[in-house]
Amino acid sequence: VLTLDLVLIGFGHVGRRFVQLLAERERVLAEEHGTACRVAGIATLRHGTALFPEGLNAARAASLVDIAAAGVPLLALRDAPALIETAADRGATDDAALVVVETTTLDIRRGQPAIDHVRTSLERGAHVITANKGPAAFAFRELRDLAERKGLEFRFESAVMDGVPVFNLVNDTLPGVQVDGFRGVINSTTNYMLCEMEKGREWSDTLSDMQSQGIAEADPSLDVEGWDAATKTAALANVLFDAKITPHEVRRRGITGIGPGELAHARRQGRRLRLVARATRSEGRSDCVVAPVELPEDDPLALLPGMANALILETELLGPVAITELGGGLTPTAYGLFSDLVAVSRRIRGRSAIAARRSP
Amino acid sequence: VLTLDLVLIGFGHVGRRFVQLLAERERVLAEEHGTACRVAGIATLRHGTALFPEGLNAARAASLVDIAAAGVPLLALRDAPALIETAADRGATDDAALVVVETTTLDIRRGQPAIDHVRTSLERGAHVITANKGPAAFAFRELRDLAERKGLEFRFESAVMDGVPVFNLVNDTLPGVQVDGFRGVINSTTNYMLCEMEKGREWSDTLSDMQSQGIAEADPSLDVEGWDAATKTAALANVLFDAKITPHEVRRRGITGIGPGELAHARRQGRRLRLVARATRSEGRSDCVVAPVELPEDDPLALLPGMANALILETELLGPVAITELGGGLTPTAYGLFSDLVAVSRRIRGRSAIAARRSP
Repeated sequence: VLTLDLVLIGFGHVGRRFVQLLAERERVLAEEHGTACRVAGIATLRHGTALFPEGLNAARAASLVDIAAAGVPLLALRDAPALIETAADRGATDDAALVVVETTTLDIRRGQPAIDHVRTSLERGAHVITANKGPAAFAFRELRDLAERKGLEFRFESAVMDGVPVFNLVNDTLPGVQVDGFRGVINSTTNYMLCEMEKGREWSDTLSDMQSQGIAEADPSLDVEGWDAATKTAALANVLFDAKITPHEVRRRGITGIGPGELAHARRQGRRLRLVARATRSEGRSDCVVAPVELPEDDPLALLPGMANALILETELLGPVAITELGGGLTPTAYGLFSDLVAVSRRIRGRSAIAARRSP
Repeated sequence: VLTLDLVLIGFGHVGRRFVQLLAERERVLAEEHGTACRVAGIATLRHGTALFPEGLNAARAASLVDIAAAGVPLLALRDAPALIETAADRGATDDAALVVVETTTLDIRRGQPAIDHVRTSLERGAHVITANKGPAAFAFRELRDLAERKGLEFRFESAVMDGVPVFNLVNDTLPGVQVDGFRGVINSTTNYMLCEMEKGREWSDTLSDMQSQGIAEADPSLDVEGWDAATKTAALANVLFDAKITPHEVRRRGITGIGPGELAHARRQGRRLRLVARATRSEGRSDCVVAPVELPEDDPLALLPGMANALILETELLGPVAITELGGGLTPTAYGLFSDLVAVSRRIRGRSAIAARRSP
C-alpha cells in the first residue's frame, strides 16, 4: 500500500471539503488505488500552522475547523514554506510520498504566494496539487519543467470548471490531439448575473446572490472585471498550447456597466450577451481575449443556465468538442483535488515500479 | 521500444482511415509513448485475408485498398478467428504484443461475429480494440471479466460518439465518481433528419443526405428504428453502471412516421422533437429507453445541430456533466481506435514494469 502524506496549505472551505471527501472515499482509494492518506500538516492564514508527526487521518483532519482551538500541538512554524520544508525533512520512503495540497486564494497581481508554495514543494521533492489558478496562469512553464526534472506531479484540475475534467480530458483521454483554440463561459458569477439581469433583476441583487452563496470571489471585481476568466484563459492557453502568457496579457473587458437594459436589447435582436473567453493559436502565437459577446440564441454558450460553465475545444482530429459543467459548487471543486490525488497515486505506483525494474 | 503487432479484422473505411492515422502519428507514438506499430495481418469480408509475417508499416497497410489485388501474399486463411490464431501462435515477447483491431459492422440480432472475434483474441492473449458497439452492448460483462483474468485490454471508445471520450472520460478522468444515469442524443443520422425536417424538408431527402455522406448505417432501419441508439445505450449502461442488458431490453421507439408536420407542431409550442436515449439506475436496477421526446427549446439536447451528439452524465459528486461532439465523421471514429491503442500501450508499459518488479 502506498501512503500519501498530505501537507495542506490553506484550509478554508475547499481544503476542508477535500479532507472530508478523502474520509468519505477512503475505501475507494484503498481498494481501487492501493493508496492511504494521512494529513502530515496544515498551514492556514488565520489559525496558525500545525505539524502532525504521526499523521492525522482524513476524518480527524476534516473535523479541525479551527486548528489553534482544537488543542492540536502547534509547532513554532512561521509559514507555509517552513511547514513544507519540515515535512520534507522527514523524508520520503519507498512506500510513502509527500503531496502538498495548495488551496490558497488567487492573487491577481503576481499569482503569489501560491507559485512559491508550488516551487518550494517541487524543489523539496513533494508532488503538488492545487485548486489555485495562479501557478498555471503565471508560471506554468517553469513549474511544469521543474516538476518534470524532479519526476514529480504538478496538477490543478479544479482551477477551471471545478473537478469537471478539462486538463485531464486533453492530457489523459485525447492523446495526440492538437488543440488549436477554445471558446468558453468559465466564470459562474458573471454568467449568473447576466442570466438574472436578463430577467430584469438589478446588478447589485444578482451580485449579492453570488456573494451570499459563496460563489463570488472575496473581491468581486475579480469576477465582474473579468480577471477570474482571464486567469483561467491564461492557464488553459499555457497548458493546452504552451502559450507562455500571464492573465495580464489576456485582452480583457468585464461586465461592469452592463445592466438589464443592454441584455433586453440584445434579446430583442435574438441574441444573448455573455462573458466569453476565447483563445486561438496560429503560427506559434496565441491570441487570448475575455469580453462580453452577443451570441446567437442557438450558440451552445448562450443557453448555459446560471452558474453552468462550458468549454468548447477546437481540435484538429475531432473538430469542436465541448465539455459542460451543469452543476457546480464546493464539492465539485474539492473533487478536482481528489482526482488530482488519484492521478498522483497512479503516477507514483507506475513510476516506482519502473524504477524498481531498472535496479536489479 | 514496445512494438504492437496489429491484426485488423475488417478493413473498410474506418479500418483504412485508422492505419492512415497511425502512419500520420508514427512520431507521436514513438516519442511520447515509446511505441511502434506494424500490421501483422488483415482480414476483410470482401477482399480475403492476409498475414504479413514480417509486419507491414502503417503507411504501406493504408495503401492497401484491395488486398487481393495488391499482390500481397494471401495465405490460405479461411476467416478472422484463424488469422488471430495464426498471429497468436507466433507468440508475444517482452517487447511486442498482439493487438486485434476489430472494425466489422454491427449485427443487431446477437452482436456477432464481433463478440467471437473479441473472445478469441482475448483467449489467445491479444488485446482488443473495437469500433463495433456489439461486444459492449451484448456481452460486456463476460468480455470484461475475460480481459481482466487474462490481464489484457478490451477497449471500444469509438463505439459511442466516435473518438470523443465517453468511456475514457469516466474511467480515466472521473475516478471514484458514481454515474447514476444519462441522457443523450447519440445517433447522428436521426438527429440530422429531425433537424432538416424541422426546416420543412421531406423524410426521404434527409435520409438520402445521410446515406450519400456514408453516415447512415448500411441498413437505415438500424438508425431510424432506434436500434443504433439502443445499442449505444446498452453499451453505456453496461459499462457505466454494470446494467447487464442487451439492446433488446432497451425500450425503443424510432422516428418512423415523424415528418415535417409533427416537427412544426412541436416548434409552434416552443418544443423540439428529438430522439433521446435515457438510462437511470436505482436500487441496482436500470431502466433504459430510446424514444422521440419533445424537449424544451433551452434543453442542451434540443439545440444540437445536424450530426452533433451529446451525452449528459448524471453524477453524484459533480452533478450533471455533458460532453458534446460538435463535429463527427470518419476521422473522429478512427481517432477513437488510435486513443484506444495508446491506452493499450500505456497499460502494457505500466504492467510489464509491475510484473518485473515482482520477479526479482
